[in-house]
Amino acid sequence: MSDPADDLIPSVFARDCASRGVLTNVTGKWGGLALAALHDGSYRFNALRRRVDGVSEKMLAQTLQALERDGLVRREVQATIPPRVEYSLTPLGARAAAKLKELIDLLEGEIGQVRAARAEYDRDHAAGVR
Amino acid sequence: MSDPADDLIPSVFARDCASRGVLTNVTGKWGGLALAALHDGSYRFNALRRRVDGVSEKMLAQTLQALERDGLVRREVQATIPPRVEYSLTPLGARAAAKLKELIDLLEGEIGQVRAARAEYDRDHAAGVR
Repeated sequence: MSDPADDLIPSVFARDCASRGVLTNVTGKWGGLALAALHDGSYRFNALRRRVDGVSEKMLAQTLQALERDGLVRREVQATIPPRVEYSLTPLGARAAAKLKELIDLLEGEIGQVRAARAEYDRDHAAGVR
Repeated sequence: MSDPADDLIPSVFARDCASRGVLTNVTGKWGGLALAALHDGSYRFNALRRRVDGVSEKMLAQTLQALERDGLVRREVQATIPPRVEYSLTPLGARAAAKLKELIDLLEGEIGQVRAARAEYDRDHAAGVR
């Protein structure tokens, strides 16, 4: 069965487009951080949870499941006792994570400019400029 | 007054780092789409709302305010009757939007691969493979 949406040009701006769904998974608060962490190498669940400071166990599990379903993250269960579950990026996930990492590097590198803009905005708005 | 956090290396992985806040604003569901739309040119509020299909007036207003505060979006009020309010990217906003656009282009371009991964995942999980 072919999905009629397959014939359209994908656009994240269209609310029902699958590409908007995957963008939301990739750039959602925890999805983006999980992908960026996995960009540095594979992780076991608890190590990833420590790396992504502030995420709950439940939210991280849901986030990884959505990324796995999108084909961006691979979940590998090793037959050890106890079983060891490791998460890593698929080739497509690695490409997405690399783009995301560039964005993160830019924002981390320019955080001084962002702080200055926030201070100015807060000053202007406290003074009732607008 | 200097903020002690200024002395640390910024990291989106740290929950209290300002860079995580700006990453959330940039990549949040609506923030990312608003930046990507403004990457194509400036917009008036209602035109931007039509472009970002599905966003409510309130959510778009909040999103633009957060991006303006971060110094990524410029809000310009023209002294016409009625006043015309236009939104555009600052130079830093344009750099962030360009990175985000590369990520969006990748995901839109590979949406077939994402769809296939989802179908496989749903088939495996319905069959109780794991």
